[in-house]
Amino acid sequence: MTDFGEVAAPDGRVAAAARRRQDLLTKPRGALGRLEDLSVWVSACQGNCPPQQFTRARVVVFAGDHGVAGQGVSAYPAEVTAQMLDNIDGGGAAINVLAELAGATVRAVDVAVDRDPSGPVPHRVRRSSGNIATQDALSLDEAEAAVRVGRQIADEEVDAGADLLIAGDMGIGNTTAATTLVAALTDTEPVLVVGRGTGIDDAAWSRKTAAVRDALYRSAPVRADPLALLAACGGADLAAMAGFCAQAAVRRTPLLLDGLVVTAAALVAERLAPGARLWWQAGHRSPEPAHALALTQLGLDPIVDLGLRLGEGTGAAVALPIVRAAVAALSSMATFDDAGVSGPAPGP
Amino acid sequence: MTDFGEVAAPDGRVAAAARRRQDLLTKPRGALGRLEDLSVWVSACQGNCPPQQFTRARVVVFAGDHGVAGQGVSAYPAEVTAQMLDNIDGGGAAINVLAELAGATVRAVDVAVDRDPSGPVPHRVRRSSGNIATQDALSLDEAEAAVRVGRQIADEEVDAGADLLIAGDMGIGNTTAATTLVAALTDTEPVLVVGRGTGIDDAAWSRKTAAVRDALYRSAPVRADPLALLAACGGADLAAMAGFCAQAAVRRTPLLLDGLVVTAAALVAERLAPGARLWWQAGHRSPEPAHALALTQLGLDPIVDLGLRLGEGTGAAVALPIVRAAVAALSSMATFDDAGVSGPAPGP
Repeated sequence: MTDFGEVAAPDGRVAAAARRRQDLLTKPRGALGRLEDLSVWVSACQGNCPPQQFTRARVVVFAGDHGVAGQGVSAYPAEVTAQMLDNIDGGGAAINVLAELAGATVRAVDVAVDRDPSGPVPHRVRRSSGNIATQDALSLDEAEAAVRVGRQIADEEVDAGADLLIAGDMGIGNTTAATTLVAALTDTEPVLVVGRGTGIDDAAWSRKTAAVRDALYRSAPVRADPLALLAACGGADLAAMAGFCAQAAVRRTPLLLDGLVVTAAALVAERLAPGARLWWQAGHRSPEPAHALALTQLGLDPIVDLGLRLGEGTGAAVALPIVRAAVAALSSMATFDDAGVSGPAPGP
Repeated sequence: MTDFGEVAAPDGRVAAAARRRQDLLTKPRGALGRLEDLSVWVSACQGNCPPQQFTRARVVVFAGDHGVAGQGVSAYPAEVTAQMLDNIDGGGAAINVLAELAGATVRAVDVAVDRDPSGPVPHRVRRSSGNIATQDALSLDEAEAAVRVGRQIADEEVDAGADLLIAGDMGIGNTTAATTLVAALTDTEPVLVVGRGTGIDDAAWSRKTAAVRDALYRSAPVRADPLALLAACGGADLAAMAGFCAQAAVRRTPLLLDGLVVTAAALVAERLAPGARLWWQAGHRSPEPAHALALTQLGLDPIVDLGLRLGEGTGAAVALPIVRAAVAALSSMATFDDAGVSGPAPGP
């Protein structure tokens, strides 16, 4: 159930047709820059040229707590995860506001929040993940269950008509686990990857770096096994995000990555489902050093760079109107022929 | 009529209130990065905290021809200016599509297109501007009239309710004039500022660089006089854009700059109306070297960098949803108190 196999690429023939169509539109060749590339990507993912505007863009926020928060690695107390999950459900969080503006809807999933649920919670894997500085985040069975949860959520969303997916995160301590995953998969020293997360001071940064170092040491033997790595130094939320990102690709549905946490999960997803990254774009670049490393390994160039370091899917939500603009330009602009506009002058 | 005087800054007290409100919202302090700065800027321009979402964002495209196009400085024949003006009026150009997606409307103005108008054209200054490599673009009277045109258009738009303005350009050869203005005002050698415009080859680049050099030489005596500089090496469209950008600031209306051509005009506008730049944001960064120089002199940091080199206001239109996102976040997110979310943990 966590064996995704190799993922087929978006449609190269449609991509070529989209590129040709771009050159017929009333603008100098290549003048829409990155928008042209994005329009070609959407076309290839949809298998349609011109592409269709997204009608059901969907953000899924994966919420989970992390025992490592007890090491003093965050500026915020762990209870904030549950409070923010409620805030998202109530429509008051940044992702609610930014998604609405971008024409997307939001779903938040309690994968491993540290509280007793008031009733049955369909996709919950466990209560918090373990403290990765001293113990595994999950058992192997739990890691597999969490990947399955993400996979199932992607299936639910695509089956319900989602034509663009965004993965988001919420969880105090989750950048510590995400940073460890990136350090492990890019073979980088902790001091080079650990960032300021939600805005920690120097002392907390030292504690966070020590936690990453300890988690890296513990997980060294299983680095080559993505599922075991998620169990050793990831977390249920990260495993679910990885399953979600991989399954989006399997279902041939374009997906926008958000910041460090989602991109760390995507780095694992690319190991679980090689080729999945061709179905993803990086919404934004965060100031977290590990984010840049993960993006480089995935070969993804972020759409915007606005200093966002919030998570929840906000960086992807801010990039979504740009992807929409790319789709609109390719599908709605006049061609030179339509508009009776002269092409480039012949050379001398 | 072209003496704007010093322009008062946006409201600093409202800016401070907006910054304080950002710190109450359910996110780590500063975590929305540039979006926070943009929300503070909009609040200060509106004199309102929280700010109101734009209800009438308006793009004005200034179209004009340039005699210097006859020097072979563009990849496209001069007739394309008139054809593209018609394409914009017909809704088929990139700016139409991108503005609609961003919730803005488009107005195109023939300031100096090289064709006989079929009837009276309200804001037309002349038929084409002169070939700046060999002669002045405009008489001083024409330059003054063109600045007045831009000023009048800004007044018309603000009087009609526009709460955000975008300036755009359309005109074969206009990057040659714009590049000359930037070289003159930043005291830069032609080879360092001349770019590829709509996509010219090496031979055209050499011709363009020679034209800029000749225009710079001719205009050297009047560099310190912005109106005389527009007459010597600018053009009617550029002068109108300068008047438009300056008057937007006088009317306390936020404005998004587009690429090289608009930003060159803005550089002149800041000379005509010192302080106007505080009412502007740079929508995007184009690959034109002169654009970066002009942005640096204006102290503006572009919102997006997507390799766009189209003009028409497209770079600003792509940035508009990000400014809207900034406004929405500050006006609609829950505060920590509203949502019952804990703030940062107290330090040890």
